Amino acid sequence: MEKPYVLGIDMGGTGTKFGIVDARGNVLQSSSIKTPDYPDINDYCDVLCAEMKKIAEAFGGMQNVRGVGAGAPNGNYYTGCIENAPNLPWKGIVPFAKLIQERMGVPCRITNDANAAAVGEMTYGAARGMKNFIEITLGTGVGSGIVIDGKIVYGHDGFAGELGHTKIVHGPEGRQCGCGQRGCIEAYASATGVARSAKEIIENSTKETSLRKLETITSFDVFKAAEAGDEVAKEIFDFTGEMLGKKLADFVAFSAPEAIILFGGLTKSGHWIMEPIEKALNDNVMPLWKNKVKLLVSTLKDSDAAILGASSLAWDVQAQAPMREA
Amino acid sequence: MEKPYVLGIDMGGTGTKFGIVDARGNVLQSSSIKTPDYPDINDYCDVLCAEMKKIAEAFGGMQNVRGVGAGAPNGNYYTGCIENAPNLPWKGIVPFAKLIQERMGVPCRITNDANAAAVGEMTYGAARGMKNFIEITLGTGVGSGIVIDGKIVYGHDGFAGELGHTKIVHGPEGRQCGCGQRGCIEAYASATGVARSAKEIIENSTKETSLRKLETITSFDVFKAAEAGDEVAKEIFDFTGEMLGKKLADFVAFSAPEAIILFGGLTKSGHWIMEPIEKALNDNVMPLWKNKVKLLVSTLKDSDAAILGASSLAWDVQAQAPMREA
Repeated sequence: MEKPYVLGIDMGGTGTKFGIVDARGNVLQSSSIKTPDYPDINDYCDVLCAEMKKIAEAFGGMQNVRGVGAGAPNGNYYTGCIENAPNLPWKGIVPFAKLIQERMGVPCRITNDANAAAVGEMTYGAARGMKNFIEITLGTGVGSGIVIDGKIVYGHDGFAGELGHTKIVHGPEGRQCGCGQRGCIEAYASATGVARSAKEIIENSTKETSLRKLETITSFDVFKAAEAGDEVAKEIFDFTGEMLGKKLADFVAFSAPEAIILFGGLTKSGHWIMEPIEKALNDNVMPLWKNKVKLLVSTLKDSDAAILGASSLAWDVQAQAPMREA
Repeated sequence: MEKPYVLGIDMGGTGTKFGIVDARGNVLQSSSIKTPDYPDINDYCDVLCAEMKKIAEAFGGMQNVRGVGAGAPNGNYYTGCIENAPNLPWKGIVPFAKLIQERMGVPCRITNDANAAAVGEMTYGAARGMKNFIEITLGTGVGSGIVIDGKIVYGHDGFAGELGHTKIVHGPEGRQCGCGQRGCIEAYASATGVARSAKEIIENSTKETSLRKLETITSFDVFKAAEAGDEVAKEIFDFTGEMLGKKLADFVAFSAPEAIILFGGLTKSGHWIMEPIEKALNDNVMPLWKNKVKLLVSTLKDSDAAILGASSLAWDVQAQAPMREA
């Protein structure tokens, strides 16, 4: 009998979540550890693997587990290494997949979180049956996973799909981005970007708005205000949607996807944000693509999505190319 | 014995060139007909195929020809059709590959000219041995062929890789592009785009320049002036290179290519254009790609490149996916 389970790891700067997943995409059991508690990568892997084995025990042990998939910042699919991740405790190049394989006795594949989300979307979510789509993750940052002919695009070096760091504003007036550049779409469409846009639009507006009294503004605050008829809130979504939609049009010209799938907190604002994105997308594509490319919201469950996406890397480990030497 | 030859067709709005090619990439014999002379596609195909058979006769006849590859405006690789090409005499959807196959008795594959150039570059040119690169064709328009994992990206509908129609200037100040949009990089980096930039820069400059007296300006005129020490000519290349390099940086974030390969007349201006492109590219990529992505000039011979590129589609016709229904 085929081994019926895979393990998924969602590694972040503050926490690492992990769980066991069945072939239907159910996260059957999960747990977490605090990433910064382990300044030595070996200690981190020891604890993480011990915890994952405990979970596997409840499902018949490791002989029922096909492999481990991990989504990690700066995770390189080709080498299995985490490379120079600014928000993790381990500096330089960490051979993460190898460390996990040694401890777990099954293959491990890693990639970044947005690629993991795209694989998850294709395996269990809104992109089931699609061969060509782009997943855009809207969170603390803006990430992307590009799928062409049913496969994630990793590129020459393993780091393809950094669409959050394409430019929507060129020159000094572009907003400073965390990556060191200016004018990246991440600086406008991430959670921080929306908060900054909100602040700027409120300051430049004389209109009444309930948002003016807030210290920090989230997209959910803007959503609630928009629902209550707040004009300034609508302006914030219109601005954000226009910036993002314009870049999505560029992405369409690249890979002519069947759909662009948006994932993350911002999409919870529903039509307030989706309509301006869709308008800017269709206003900025060539005639042949106008109203042809589907704009969808992810159907992955938020709480499980990252574990699920990561775990789905592990299903066809054998079918994938062997890892390159780091 | 394997059939040793392929036929290549380079279809344009004014002329159609075609020739027979050996496995080393030599165009052994070629000829041409005038595209607008045949308002009926069947007449066009009759004459084209009769001419190609004549050429094949000199090399042992059609039993020595493996297949036919064609580069055509709006050529759809998946369906084998030319779809709504504005600059060709035949309107609507033309099942070109089928019409050629019927007459020639061998498989025919089509794509657009930029994709054909990319396949040619990979088979015979600067991209030999590369699995991930982007070919940018700089001519009357700006085209692109994107290669990922050794394969051209066709996308969901067969029309991926329209990088000439991604935007470098958003809003009403963007230049009108032939595609109907504003601000596309094609409107700045095509031959017409360079001529327009030249005109604008000369009009806004009080500097002495030999270019001021010219009625129409080509990139070769600008090149000659730059070589002679003309400051305005250098400004024109700096402006054009900056616009193009900024967009190339976006493309790198998409597919993380090993190289970007430039093809066409503009590249003849050597370091005058290549240095500003390279500077803008490296100024606008994420740190991880700075000075890592090769910027190369095509090594395909201009006169033969289009026939060569198109013909290379025909080498592994059997290995490729069957055509979809139109």
